[in-house]
Amino acid sequence: MKKIDVTEAIFAIKKEKNLTWEAIADAVGMTDVWITSACLGMNSCTEEVAEKLVAFLGLPAEAKSVLMEYPTKTWDEAIPQDPLIYRLYEVVGVYGPTLKEVIQEKFGDGIMSAIDFSMKVDKEENPKGDRVILTMNGKFLPYKSW
Amino acid sequence: MKKIDVTEAIFAIKKEKNLTWEAIADAVGMTDVWITSACLGMNSCTEEVAEKLVAFLGLPAEAKSVLMEYPTKTWDEAIPQDPLIYRLYEVVGVYGPTLKEVIQEKFGDGIMSAIDFSMKVDKEENPKGDRVILTMNGKFLPYKSW
Amino acid sequence: MKKIDVTEAIFAIKKEKNLTWEAIADAVGMTDVWITSACLGMNSCTEEVAEKLVAFLGLPAEAKSVLMEYPTKTWDEAIPQDPLIYRLYEVVGVYGPTLKEVIQEKFGDGIMSAIDFSMKVDKEENPKGDRVILTMNGKFLPYKSW
Amino acid sequence: MKKIDVTEAIFAIKKEKNLTWEAIADAVGMTDVWITSACLGMNSCTEEVAEKLVAFLGLPAEAKSVLMEYPTKTWDEAIPQDPLIYRLYEVVGVYGPTLKEVIQEKFGDGIMSAIDFSMKVDKEENPKGDRVILTMNGKFLPYKSW
Amino acid sequence: MKKIDVTEAIFAIKKEKNLTWEAIADAVGMTDVWITSACLGMNSCTEEVAEKLVAFLGLPAEAKSVLMEYPTKTWDEAIPQDPLIYRLYEVVGVYGPTLKEVIQEKFGDGIMSAIDFSMKVDKEENPKGDRVILTMNGKFLPYKSW
Amino acid sequence: MKKIDVTEAIFAIKKEKNLTWEAIADAVGMTDVWITSACLGMNSCTEEVAEKLVAFLGLPAEAKSVLMEYPTKTWDEAIPQDPLIYRLYEVVGVYGPTLKEVIQEKFGDGIMSAIDFSMKVDKEENPKGDRVILTMNGKFLPYKSW
Amino acid sequence: MKKIDVTEAIFAIKKEKNLTWEAIADAVGMTDVWITSACLGMNSCTEEVAEKLVAFLGLPAEAKSVLMEYPTKTWDEAIPQDPLIYRLYEVVGVYGPTLKEVIQEKFGDGIMSAIDFSMKVDKEENPKGDRVILTMNGKFLPYKSW
Amino acid sequence: MKKIDVTEAIFAIKKEKNLTWEAIADAVGMTDVWITSACLGMNSCTEEVAEKLVAFLGLPAEAKSVLMEYPTKTWDEAIPQDPLIYRLYEVVGVYGPTLKEVIQEKFGDGIMSAIDFSMKVDKEENPKGDRVILTMNGKFLPYKSW
Amino acid sequence: MKKIDVTEAIFAIKKEKNLTWEAIADAVGMTDVWITSACLGMNSCTEEVAEKLVAFLGLPAEAKSVLMEYPTKTWDEAIPQDPLIYRLYEVVGVYGPTLKEVIQEKFGDGIMSAIDFSMKVDKEENPKGDRVILTMNGKFLPYKSW
Amino acid sequence: MKKIDVTEAIFAIKKEKNLTWEAIADAVGMTDVWITSACLGMNSCTEEVAEKLVAFLGLPAEAKSVLMEYPTKTWDEAIPQDPLIYRLYEVVGVYGPTLKEVIQEKFGDGIMSAIDFSMKVDKEENPKGDRVILTMNGKFLPYKSW
Repeated sequence: MKKIDVTEAIFAIKKEKNLTWEAIADAVGMTDVWITSACLGMNSCTEEVAEKLVAFLGLPAEAKSVLMEYPTKTWDEAIPQDPLIYRLYEVVGVYGPTLKEVIQEKFGDGIMSAIDFSMKVDKEENPKGDRVILTMNGKFLPYKSW
Repeated sequence: MKKIDVTEAIFAIKKEKNLTWEAIADAVGMTDVWITSACLGMNSCTEEVAEKLVAFLGLPAEAKSVLMEYPTKTWDEAIPQDPLIYRLYEVVGVYGPTLKEVIQEKFGDGIMSAIDFSMKVDKEENPKGDRVILTMNGKFLPYKSW
Repeated sequence: MKKIDVTEAIFAIKKEKNLTWEAIADAVGMTDVWITSACLGMNSCTEEVAEKLVAFLGLPAEAKSVLMEYPTKTWDEAIPQDPLIYRLYEVVGVYGPTLKEVIQEKFGDGIMSAIDFSMKVDKEENPKGDRVILTMNGKFLPYKSW
Repeated sequence: MKKIDVTEAIFAIKKEKNLTWEAIADAVGMTDVWITSACLGMNSCTEEVAEKLVAFLGLPAEAKSVLMEYPTKTWDEAIPQDPLIYRLYEVVGVYGPTLKEVIQEKFGDGIMSAIDFSMKVDKEENPKGDRVILTMNGKFLPYKSW
Repeated sequence: MKKIDVTEAIFAIKKEKNLTWEAIADAVGMTDVWITSACLGMNSCTEEVAEKLVAFLGLPAEAKSVLMEYPTKTWDEAIPQDPLIYRLYEVVGVYGPTLKEVIQEKFGDGIMSAIDFSMKVDKEENPKGDRVILTMNGKFLPYKSW
Repeated sequence: MKKIDVTEAIFAIKKEKNLTWEAIADAVGMTDVWITSACLGMNSCTEEVAEKLVAFLGLPAEAKSVLMEYPTKTWDEAIPQDPLIYRLYEVVGVYGPTLKEVIQEKFGDGIMSAIDFSMKVDKEENPKGDRVILTMNGKFLPYKSW
Repeated sequence: MKKIDVTEAIFAIKKEKNLTWEAIADAVGMTDVWITSACLGMNSCTEEVAEKLVAFLGLPAEAKSVLMEYPTKTWDEAIPQDPLIYRLYEVVGVYGPTLKEVIQEKFGDGIMSAIDFSMKVDKEENPKGDRVILTMNGKFLPYKSW
Repeated sequence: MKKIDVTEAIFAIKKEKNLTWEAIADAVGMTDVWITSACLGMNSCTEEVAEKLVAFLGLPAEAKSVLMEYPTKTWDEAIPQDPLIYRLYEVVGVYGPTLKEVIQEKFGDGIMSAIDFSMKVDKEENPKGDRVILTMNGKFLPYKSW
Repeated sequence: MKKIDVTEAIFAIKKEKNLTWEAIADAVGMTDVWITSACLGMNSCTEEVAEKLVAFLGLPAEAKSVLMEYPTKTWDEAIPQDPLIYRLYEVVGVYGPTLKEVIQEKFGDGIMSAIDFSMKVDKEENPKGDRVILTMNGKFLPYKSW
Repeated sequence: MKKIDVTEAIFAIKKEKNLTWEAIADAVGMTDVWITSACLGMNSCTEEVAEKLVAFLGLPAEAKSVLMEYPTKTWDEAIPQDPLIYRLYEVVGVYGPTLKEVIQEKFGDGIMSAIDFSMKVDKEENPKGDRVILTMNGKFLPYKSW
């Protein structure tokens, strides 16, 4: 069993049992964004989380160790195509240098970590059309000189 | 005068007068992220904002209409290289399909707009290292069927 | 069953029963362009449309939920090769900046949505050679400033 | 004087005289989309149109022959980046195979010409947000066999 | 059965029966270049040609409708690698702008159609080495203005 | 003076004197396709041709040796964009493997040379639209084994 | 059986019988470089060589005609990655323009054929480290003018 | 003065004085291939060679230190386009895996160095057409294990 | 059995027996970095090492000769995506020209070999966060002139 | 004055005064690798270091603030070409997955930081050829889960 097989098993069970990512997240005590990324094979679970996930979904026993494996994180498209994902890429293209200016003004020369990092998605109801609130939270890492 | 010339003039004045983007933002009544993007030539100003910006910075008079021009938004690198910007690209690569799952679970089939969109950067002080809080706020657009 | 399997099943039945996209569209109460895109796995059906499509074509029952899944929209070729599709790409290349000028003159700074969007194909008979009339209809989205 | 020089001269005059593409189109008796493309150097003018354009805008005399030159049509970005133009590219990616199905069902094996071709942009007012109506009109060209 | 399956069946039969493309072309009443392209899945046959081809080669009956399907024309390599094909690509690279000059001098602003198009290959015997004579015949399409 | 300078000088004179490539070809005793390629810097002239060309056009004396230099043949676009040139590229993509089959059936394992090679463009008048006849003539080179 | 199948069969037999390319070359009366390229599917054998190869290695009878097929020569990586092959690519990059200068100084305007071409590998023993002597031998082809 | 300026100066003098690379090579006591590469900015000269080159060609004095600078070796085209250079690239593509087999059979697991490396070009006269003999000589470097 | 099969077998056994690369390295008398690269199919084993590895892990007997085969070293992504590997790529991008300056100042014109090369990974414990110490050791190869 | 201008000024002075990077490093109290990267515009100096550098080299006064600017780190070639830099890229390609295995075995799921990072180059004298010892030292960053 590889990570891709576990992912497919999870999608099948999720559809069959009519579960949401939110329900899965609650069952294992993690957030919906993070557990979804782990189910998609992009993060590794601790033993405790893997056990809970296997138990809650009724995955085969060997899935536990697979969920705990450290993933190789890759993606197919250098420039994403699905419109939802492309819009995020466009934001990075259009606003990347802007964010560099603003972040480095506030923090100094350095970057926002994508490793010591978390993210969440909220829904803001709005009569003119609901809004997606996407919040990234990453540690600032200053450049070292030596 | 083209947008690039106005951008260079702004950078020169900003350095000479030792201004911050935050100060410029306050002077024109916009946020720091947005006014930075406009100064970098990635958004167009309303007449009122353009006038305030020209007055506050002491830009040449013709800069006003240039700031009001509708920009062609492009960027040099399909895959960004500067580490601060690359990390954002990496987030889109690693978490793009995760965000698609989570956003579409909460909102239905559609996308987060990158046009009816705003963004802000906050600093969270933390003894283990300050954290960058980056918040995106985009209207949800459901796919139309016809 | 995945979207690709449903697409293949639809093509097989369509050929066997000698159906047209127009006939399928009429049977489910949608336009030919839209239902074709849904059958090709590029749009998700409402439950009602999925049921009608399954019934009309005699698809396996599980196809219904697959047709309702939210698709990941991707394409194989960054630059299309089939001549019919390449010509559309060429139009975007040759006339893209022209359309930007004309649309933004008429509407202000913003874009034509590809999400709140519809499209149709008409045939104009002409003794010198019939003409394809392709009409796109997208909501204008003005850029937000903040 | 090259086409790029004529384009820059036109933009400068258009801004100075506060003209619209529509006004320029009316003055020379062509549509706004076509004359814009010619001013951007993507189509060649007949002698009559070139003369009218030079006269109306007050361009230097040598611009006439430059406007009549047959352009080499190229564009910088294989995948466009400006959001207005990218959305058109996305439509080609998402709906290209759909259009192939629908056009070829209506017309037979062949393509829509991008040479014997015209295009127009209309504005449909709508209380929920105005809509861009983009209409392409191309001759159907059947594949020859031999 | 898909076009690729029909292509493979044709190659197998052609080898087994020791046929040439020329013989196949004669049997169905088309030229060798065109019938080869149809057998490679790059053109669609009329019903009459498809019937003759199935009969002559002894293909399975269902091959007939597959040969009549409208193909999606794609190729694997943006820049061809096989030396015979690369040399043609090189000719386009080296002589493309030359051909544009010469064709447009003779015909006006427009292109040679690749749709209303035919091609043939002749052998010119020559004591210093035989020569390949490749003749393309395409309708001139003038650019429309509007 | 480099080849690009000579090319620009030729274009300026050609426009001023209202010459055609055909007239230039006749003056120097070469074909229009070849002399155009030499004027575009893609082939080197013999001393005799260079002298005739300098004399006929009234080029500066130093242009002679520049026309005789062996060019580095390069082109800007791996995939051409101008529609006239793209159509030729499309022909190579669509018919490349077909030509390989047909040429190698007639000649054996080898290629058509693009070096020991000539090309011409003819105009075939036709009431349904004139036709471009493009003829390539290249030496067949058999693969050597050793 | 396709060329790839014959290649795999040859590698299996070569390993099992502990043969060298040199021994195979001697058995069929060709050089090691050429017969290796034919075994890798990059050149076609004459009937005589194919028969000898089948006999010497004990390949299945149908391999003979496959070895005689004219190959489509392609490679996976536009820029090779294996260090042995990359170094050759690097030589072409670093010394390509140098070789153009030197070859054209000695021979005139033209190229070294890669078709009427042979190559050999020799080993020069050297106490400081043996040396690879790679010799290419290609016919000079002068550019034709017409 | 940068390497590119020295290269241009050398080309100008070489043309004016009607020198060959061979004559330059003889004057400085190096081979024609190597000195050409140094003149093109792809190798650094020792002080002695740089002095001789400056003296022989009458280059400005500061050219000496520039010729001695260690070059950054880069090239413009990942896939070369000039036919002479492309043929070498094609040889690497077609015969790369063959050379890997043959070299590693003779030498063991390792590569031919492109650094401890030399190359020469010879002309073999031949009534059927002269032949280019290109000889590469590189040290074999075995892979280390540790 | 191919290298990929041996790699998969090793990973399965390593997981089942709960082994570390360090333990495998000790068992065969090589370093952990090198034996990992050999197990991943990127280096060839000597007979002695291959025997020890087969014996220690209980691999099938035929794995021995496969481990001894000379690998073709390739990787999937020209620009790596997994964050751990990308950071190394980023170091090469950001510091490549710096390393060229510093290495060539210390050693002269030449390169660090990647063939006569070894590498090790150490862990430096640190209360602020442990540190990875990655040491590369490559022979300096001076450029030859000739 | 931009970073590129300061870099060029530094190179000119360094050559004129015959300085080494090591001497510059000693003068400002940083390591040679780091100060070289700062002089190449890839790192920002503290005020103290910038002052020392300006004083030691005799740079114009305005260089100080330029050296203190936060750089945008980019490089020209996605795949480096200069052999010294390419070999480092090759190491990342060949050994990237190996390093991932070994580092993550020693440290857990995470990466080596390229921001909290230093690097040095040592020379190991060796009668068989001196060796480059390149040592990277980066903080291990464990992936966060949330």
